[in-house]
Parts: sequence; structure tokens; C-alpha cells
Amino acid sequence: MTVELVSVGTEILMGNILNSNTQYLAEKCAMLGFNMYHQVTVGDNYGRMKEVVATAVNRADIVILTGGLGPTEDDLTKEVCAEVMGMELVEDPHTRQHIEEFFHNNIYREIPANNWKMTTVPRGARVLDNHNGMAPGLILEKDGKTAILLPGPPGELYPMFEQQVFPYLETRENASLVSKTLKICGHGESQVEDQLIDLIDGQTNPTLATYAKVGEVHLRITARADEPGKAAALVEPVAAEVKRRMGDAVYTEDEGEILEMAVVRLLTGHGLTISTAESCTGGMVSARLVNVPGASRVFMEGYVTYSNEAKMKLLGVREETLAAWGAVSAQTAGEMALGGAKAAGTDVCVSITGLAGPDGGTAEKPVGLVYMACALKGQVSLARYQFKGNRGKIREQSVMKALDLARRCILAYGRGEELPGQEA
Amino acid sequence: MTVELVSVGTEILMGNILNSNTQYLAEKCAMLGFNMYHQVTVGDNYGRMKEVVATAVNRADIVILTGGLGPTEDDLTKEVCAEVMGMELVEDPHTRQHIEEFFHNNIYREIPANNWKMTTVPRGARVLDNHNGMAPGLILEKDGKTAILLPGPPGELYPMFEQQVFPYLETRENASLVSKTLKICGHGESQVEDQLIDLIDGQTNPTLATYAKVGEVHLRITARADEPGKAAALVEPVAAEVKRRMGDAVYTEDEGEILEMAVVRLLTGHGLTISTAESCTGGMVSARLVNVPGASRVFMEGYVTYSNEAKMKLLGVREETLAAWGAVSAQTAGEMALGGAKAAGTDVCVSITGLAGPDGGTAEKPVGLVYMACALKGQVSLARYQFKGNRGKIREQSVMKALDLARRCILAYGRGEELPGQEA
Repeated sequence: MTVELVSVGTEILMGNILNSNTQYLAEKCAMLGFNMYHQVTVGDNYGRMKEVVATAVNRADIVILTGGLGPTEDDLTKEVCAEVMGMELVEDPHTRQHIEEFFHNNIYREIPANNWKMTTVPRGARVLDNHNGMAPGLILEKDGKTAILLPGPPGELYPMFEQQVFPYLETRENASLVSKTLKICGHGESQVEDQLIDLIDGQTNPTLATYAKVGEVHLRITARADEPGKAAALVEPVAAEVKRRMGDAVYTEDEGEILEMAVVRLLTGHGLTISTAESCTGGMVSARLVNVPGASRVFMEGYVTYSNEAKMKLLGVREETLAAWGAVSAQTAGEMALGGAKAAGTDVCVSITGLAGPDGGTAEKPVGLVYMACALKGQVSLARYQFKGNRGKIREQSVMKALDLARRCILAYGRGEELPGQEA
Repeated sequence: MTVELVSVGTEILMGNILNSNTQYLAEKCAMLGFNMYHQVTVGDNYGRMKEVVATAVNRADIVILTGGLGPTEDDLTKEVCAEVMGMELVEDPHTRQHIEEFFHNNIYREIPANNWKMTTVPRGARVLDNHNGMAPGLILEKDGKTAILLPGPPGELYPMFEQQVFPYLETRENASLVSKTLKICGHGESQVEDQLIDLIDGQTNPTLATYAKVGEVHLRITARADEPGKAAALVEPVAAEVKRRMGDAVYTEDEGEILEMAVVRLLTGHGLTISTAESCTGGMVSARLVNVPGASRVFMEGYVTYSNEAKMKLLGVREETLAAWGAVSAQTAGEMALGGAKAAGTDVCVSITGLAGPDGGTAEKPVGLVYMACALKGQVSLARYQFKGNRGKIREQSVMKALDLARRCILAYGRGEELPGQEA
């Protein structure tokens, strides 16, 4: 089955907005096992859109279009698709009611006249209710070809796709797809592939695919079967084997959980509290922890100690340590973590000190050198990295490694083991 | 002049990477005054790529292609374009030397044989040296049509475009383009348009275009003339008029300066130091300040006081204040800022306390309610916002407003005026 994506909108052609819908839809289609050979963007122009849609309908089995479904004269996607597919536009009472309700709920006094444009649908179309906006989505089927028309705003598109389009596409494939994403921290993409190469190459159902993200790798295991239970049963043993091989590097199997959430979950589970002591990352680690809803139960306070004075005053780093080893050293990182935990009265404290550049590097301590430490109930785990990239990249990677260090320390603590890494 | 963009890469069709090059190039082409009607993505497949390129060359004057220029067998862009344009591939000594130097500089012992594939170019092509990678860019001109082949990685594409392609495109337009971006903080896009509508609608040279960003609006003024000096002379009076109308809301005219850089620049200029006292933003403001190279001269320390205890202990917020007004209140924000400045020994301290949700909101204090304060040499400026959106959006907007509050306070201080906003 071949799918083509058509993005509609002059604002995309002008570079006013970044088209991220395409990546989202492409990833979902790949997961469904569809072939995708073309993605096209076209503006709000009837003639050019008609040509693009006709070409797409001709060369693909399914065309997914985004954008151009709104109430203005520029919104032409429905009209163009109806013409290309040879379907007549008719008034749809269900959609009319939905739009009336939308306006009612949003406390408009009167419905602007142009909004009634949205109440017509190609005869025989399947209407996809829009629970996050006005314009409904549509599925048109004719002569073995399918066009799926979706609203452009991601806040409307994503839920509509997840809840209504993905299940429809599964039925088109006569298959149930079940996928599980294992999120892996502490290994690069090629390292993960090396460890799993026999599974990746040898498997056709489920399939395994890796996605490189900043500081982590996502491994998606996808199985298809004639019913969801059977597909899930195919995924599970492979997921278990991956976890056996990768060990603690797998930080979650929950698609919605990001690294800081895993840290907060582990802290909560073990009844631990945390604080942060940051230099070059300047509060990025604490900001990530506070990003987790409910972080207030485990995160107490954070120190951004950019100057040496602040490191001494707030964290009790010794002047001799700074003089002998420098601010960017394992010794300073260790004292920052221990001092931060003490000052904040927390069980855990994670510290970072490093050279994010662009200036300040030396032959001995080049830009990208970052030390970090995790103190946990008086013990300290230390780590040293030499990162590449610009200031932003170095800081981002530092944050991921520091969160991962805290995570691995809590895991070790929970098992009654020594903290991982070099001991202070 | 019509331009079409062709992105080459199966990884884009599979959703493995987000294609941000397209927005970058589209924005540049819009700035140059080109018309763009189509953007197409195609995979690393000879036949399909040939069809896409032939269509593009047929319907556009200039086709800009990105990706597929590397050394592997999958990299076919150059071969396809040469065939479509009817040009013969020949060995290019200059490119061969460049690639030898690249390997030499990157301390490879031997050059892998497949890399010599990159040394051929279509006869008569203009070679664009790649200073950030191996594969050169190419400009092919034949029969009134132009194909511009650029490497896919943004770190190679952007500098090559800025330094070599943009000037080439200017010559194609027989014009020099000069543009200036004014970055505006504190007004929404529609407010900015309202204040400048006569300039936006009435001007054809220069043109004015607004771009909405998170918490700010960028206004681009672009003029064309037969030489750069004349174009700049057209931009300047309009920029001056915009600044006259928008006042302090314009925080920079420097394309490369972002909001936190403007704050650090102003602090440095006035010999002031700063600290931060954050609750719901959890260190995001300090992280932004530390993001500025050289921030260590003005930023001393930051406090992330998520718990009430931390607010009292680290910032000296009074227990009575928290009891009477609550942690999310103007009173607490003011005491946080004054206490932070005192504790850190800085001239300025900016504080934020708010409800980022998703839980914790009440009828009186709903999610999205954020108070912030800027203390400057003992004076305090306060601000209250009711933000919309999810936790992330509320936090992001809070950070922008807090940085902007600090900026406006420093501006007022520099002019010997009272701090702006509601006085404590």
C-alpha cells in the first residue's frame, strides 16, 4: 500500500511555519508498513492544488492531506479533493450540529456566515469529528483510491489521527498493529544497533527500528497480527530480550515518559528527595525536573552556582579544592553534589561543572570537558565527559548525562548496590 | 522568478528526521522575492528522483535540491540532475584537492575509495566549496534553467547558502537585497501589525513581514536596489519609524541576538550584576542567561526555590507573607526578588512564581497565573500574567516575560526613570 502526503498552505511555502506534521505522519505510516515515495507541499491555489492532488491520487493508494479545511476562501482542500475524486459536495447535518456546538461552547453570540462552508462534505465521505477545533476531517473513498483530509494545526491533527485515522488505516491493512518503544540512555545509536543487530536484521514481525534523539535512542518494536492480542504477544518476547541485553540503559517502555519523568518516578518510588547544583548548565537540570507534573513531591531546591564564590557560599565547596583542581574537576563536582545535598537537606543531589565554551578551553581542559556527580545518602558517583559541538549541544548532552547518572544511582541504591561509576 | 524546493532522502519519507531545511530555504527565497509554488520530498531512488527533478525543472526557473550528495551508492542527486539537465559528469581537480584536504585535516590515514565519487561534477557546473563537510554544492545552469544542489546537513547547508548561494541568487535577481530584522517583545503579532499596518500595506520597497515566535515577534524589513548601499538607505528610515512607534518593545536589530543576549548586553553596559529566584520555571531563566557566552561577567548565582521552605530559607521570604498571600502572589514574587538580590549580592534579581499546572489551580488562582518581579538596586517592578496553554507553554511564556521585565527595568534604570510596571 502506497501513501503520499500533501501539505496545503502558502504559509509553508513562504517559510512562515515549520511543517512538522509531515514527520509525524511519515513516522506513523512507516509504522503501519506503508510505502511512502512522495511528500508534496502546495499553496492555497485551486489550479495548482488540483494538479498536485490528481498526481498524488494517481500514483498512490492513499493520499493524506493536511491543512486548508478552514472557513476562509483560501481553504480549498475539500473542494479540490471532491472534484479530483468526482464527488459532489452536500450539506452534512451532523457537521452543522458539531459546528453549532463548537460556537456555543466557545461563547460566540453569532456564527460568522463563512463558517457554514465547513458543513458540506463530499457525498459518501466518512466524517472525522474534530474535538479540538471546528473543521472536521474527512475520508473519501472512490474507485480504489482514498483521500484523507486532516486539519493543519497539530493540536487538532494529532488527536484526530491517533483516535480515528490510525484505527481506520489498520483496517485497510487488515491488521492490528501493536508497537512498543523502549527508550535507551547511555549508548549511541550505532552501539544499540551493534548489540541488537541480529534482532534488527533477522526479524520481520515484529520489526525493530531505532531513532536517534538528543542523548538517547528510541527503539520501536512493531508487530502486526489479525488481532491486537496476538500482535502484543509478538512484541513482548522481543522487548524482553532487548531489555535483557541492554539492562539499565532502557529507562522506560512508556511512550509518554521522558527521562526526567523516569527520574522523578524512581525518586518517588524510593521515597527520595533531590536537589541540583549546576554550573555550566545554569539551571537546565532543575528546569527539566520541575517540568514533570508533581515534581514538587521530590524536588526541593536548586542552586545555580556559576561563580566560584557561589560554589563556596552556597555549596560549601572548599577554596583549596578550587585552587588545587579548578572549578572544572571531579573534586569540585563531588563537593558540589555533597554540599548541595547537605544545604538542601535532600537524599540526592546531582551536580555539573564544565566548559561549555566557546571560550575558556585549554589544552589540558578543552571546551566540552564536563564533570558531573551524583551524591546519594553520603555516597558519590562521578562521571567525566568530553562532549563535542557548540555551547548549546554541550549543555544539552550534559543535562541528559546528569539525569541518567541520577537515574542509574537510584536504581543501584534501590537494589542495595554500590553507586555506579568511579567512586569519589 | 519561480523556485521549487526538492528534498532528497528516504529518511525524511520514513519520518526519521524533521526536515527543517525547507523552512529555512523557503524563508530565504521569500525574502529574495521569488515565487514558490511547490516543495517536494523524494527518496533515494533514481527513477522517482528523475521524475521529480524533471517536473521541477520544467515548471520552475530555479530548483534547489538538498541532500543526496554524499559518497554512498544511495547518493544520487548529482547524477540525476546531470541527466535531467543533459550535462556530462567530469572529474574536477579542485574538488578532488578539497576532499584530500578534508581527509588530511581530519587525520584519516586513507581516503575510502567511494569518496572519489564526490570528485566528479557536471561539466560547466559552478562548484560551491563545503567548508563544513566534504560534499561540495553545485550550481547547474542550462537552457535558462538552474539547479542548485546543496548538502543536507544544516551545519553544511546554512553557511554554504548564506555565503555562496544567496549572493548568487541576488545576481540572478539583478538586485542587492538588504534586510533588517527588528525583534519585538511584549506585543502579540496582531498588535504589532495593528501599529504598523500602514507601513506593512503601503510599502513595496522595502517590504515588511512579521513572524510570530514564542513570546516575541520578528519584523523583517527588506529592500532591493541595484547596489547594497541604496537598499540599506531604503531600509533605514522605515526601521527608524518602526522603532519610534514600538519604543522599548524593540529589543534588538541584530539578527544574531536573542532576548537573553540583549539582557546580558544591557547588564554589561550598565555595569550591573544579576541573579534569579525561580519557582515554577525551575531554572529556565538562569539557564537562558547562562546560555549567553560570557554571561559569567554579570550572572552570579540562581536559586530554584520550588518549596515554600526553600523560598524562606534561601530568599528570606517571610512566613507571614506566604501564609497571608500564598506562594503565587505579587507579595511573594516581590520578596523573592528583593531577597534573591540580597542573598546573591547582585544589583538585579528577577523572580517568578506561578501555577504551571496541570494541577493546583483554583477558581481564584487558576492554572496559568504567574507573578514575576524584578528588583533593581532596592526598587521592585512587579507583573502579573494569566497565560494559556499547557505546562510547557506557560513556563516558556513566563521565561520570556521575565527576561523582558528585567530588560525594561534596566532600560528605565539607565535613563534614570522609575522602574516600569506596578510598584511594590
